[in-house]
Amino acid sequence: MVPSDRATIEELFRGQQVVVTGGMGFIGSNLVIRLVDLGARVTAIDAFVPDHGANPHNLSTVSDEVEVIRAYIDEPMCFPALERASYIFDLAGQVSHIDGMNDPAKDLKCNYSTHLGMMEFLRRCNSKARIIYSSTRQIYGRALSLPVTEEHPVRPVDINGIHKAACENLNTIYARVHGMDTRSLRLTNTYGPRQLLQHDRQGFISVFMKRAILGEKIKLFGTGRQLRDLNYVDDVVQAFLLATAVPDTRGHVYNLGSDQPVSLHQIVEALQEICSFDVEVVPFPRESESIDIGDFHSDYSAIEKITGWKPKISLKKGLLRSIEFFRRNWIHYHA
Amino acid sequence: MVPSDRATIEELFRGQQVVVTGGMGFIGSNLVIRLVDLGARVTAIDAFVPDHGANPHNLSTVSDEVEVIRAYIDEPMCFPALERASYIFDLAGQVSHIDGMNDPAKDLKCNYSTHLGMMEFLRRCNSKARIIYSSTRQIYGRALSLPVTEEHPVRPVDINGIHKAACENLNTIYARVHGMDTRSLRLTNTYGPRQLLQHDRQGFISVFMKRAILGEKIKLFGTGRQLRDLNYVDDVVQAFLLATAVPDTRGHVYNLGSDQPVSLHQIVEALQEICSFDVEVVPFPRESESIDIGDFHSDYSAIEKITGWKPKISLKKGLLRSIEFFRRNWIHYHA
Repeated sequence: MVPSDRATIEELFRGQQVVVTGGMGFIGSNLVIRLVDLGARVTAIDAFVPDHGANPHNLSTVSDEVEVIRAYIDEPMCFPALERASYIFDLAGQVSHIDGMNDPAKDLKCNYSTHLGMMEFLRRCNSKARIIYSSTRQIYGRALSLPVTEEHPVRPVDINGIHKAACENLNTIYARVHGMDTRSLRLTNTYGPRQLLQHDRQGFISVFMKRAILGEKIKLFGTGRQLRDLNYVDDVVQAFLLATAVPDTRGHVYNLGSDQPVSLHQIVEALQEICSFDVEVVPFPRESESIDIGDFHSDYSAIEKITGWKPKISLKKGLLRSIEFFRRNWIHYHA
Repeated sequence: MVPSDRATIEELFRGQQVVVTGGMGFIGSNLVIRLVDLGARVTAIDAFVPDHGANPHNLSTVSDEVEVIRAYIDEPMCFPALERASYIFDLAGQVSHIDGMNDPAKDLKCNYSTHLGMMEFLRRCNSKARIIYSSTRQIYGRALSLPVTEEHPVRPVDINGIHKAACENLNTIYARVHGMDTRSLRLTNTYGPRQLLQHDRQGFISVFMKRAILGEKIKLFGTGRQLRDLNYVDDVVQAFLLATAVPDTRGHVYNLGSDQPVSLHQIVEALQEICSFDVEVVPFPRESESIDIGDFHSDYSAIEKITGWKPKISLKKGLLRSIEFFRRNWIHYHA
């Protein structure tokens, strides 16, 4: 089945109990808004950990239609929502690679041990729920060859990668050993409305957008020619919805990705068509260089084959929409 | 340098402060006894978690010469010993794959989060310590090809494998990012004196030895033709000592292994030359089958090249020594 039309997805979610962990964060909130639009009954679980991405404004347009639970995902107050859910989108976590290296125990809690607790609850109390885990291309580490397929060895280069790889493995093993219905998407660099801009530790794209809007100089580390896959958040949300339509008790993993990897320079040039700012190429700061992964782009043909998913929003259009959103809502996204 | 002669190893350890985590357990205690013999000043840290392998009798011959700290390795009472150690052998953990699946949070604590805490302490307070981590071939999962080299993809098939892989990665990343001096050995099936025999959840070899001594029937799961690498514990201890002689700030990993993989049937036949018992081939119990890894043997040429290590004790000799030890000390090893 290639469930790419809206009717199929609506049928899947209309009236269904759905949990989105990390539902107040960047990708989570975009997913929640889309699910509400599709007629799902959505619970967003979010621990509101400072600096991780939760933003009360993210769900302001749907606040009357969404139950929000302020807790870690393994806490008992989440049990009723988890127990009744047909679908669970597991996006809670902390995404800063720098923060993970500085405070690995916190990263462990946010990216692994609370997920383990949730999976243990689900295994006992709602083992039929369909679970979609938000993994990351970071677990591959430096690419041995490009584009990177799902068969590429998993060799994390930082704490965040260790814990995300462990959590993805957990989902795979709970499918295979306990017969649970799990799958994981390995996201690349995602950008768009509702992204955290308040600090500079969640990847280059949010830094670039913030600087572009403020008209501040953007610094490119190294050569600026590093290649990246960028996905606009609406495309990523669509991938989550389509992946949900596929039953899976083997715990499959699917790359997301783009058709055209772009260099940091190209991203900056695309932003300069929208905003006015200067650019400077500077040497890598030590704490970033030691965990940098070099060029990266992935092969997303596996998910395309199974679900028909393809990214549809061009970089130019995606950046324009993002910048417009942030300009309209600046007070909520700038510290 | 190939530091395989006793003089070189003695020079390395004589008078040195050494910590062995899991020092009351099977491999840990054998290592402690050898280190004492080499003139090291040894602290054994062990949480004495029931059923994990700690046995007070294990260090009875050296109890006057070893400091024993009863704690998890990340607890403050371990800090003085960790702070002054030149060498840290990190063998603490829980080794039952069945127990890991049944209580993953406990496995997380014993096999990962306490090690993370210890490494965070060391990074700040004793970043020059040389650390040797006890990893496992379990992290490879089912072998894609035999013999398995260190380049084989890491694809754990159970909770224990997830957490051991994460901990090994941690050691590698702390070497590369923080410049710490770490390396990991990936152990295969190890057997010998001081092994836990009291329950049946720590792998087949301890079950076989116990049944053989008691004259009870041994049940082989599946066909009984599964191939395994077996290492006698003295050979494994020697590998730990030799690996310590190699400075390493890239966090290398080294397989252990044997020259001749043996089938479960062959192991049982070797035991039948020492003890009298019956054998029966039975179907796999479900909880074991879902995490079984099929045939396995590894390529240990990397550590051989660097240190000259080779296993020296034949299966026949190793089993004979083990059975004799357990018969002499039966009261301490049988529940």
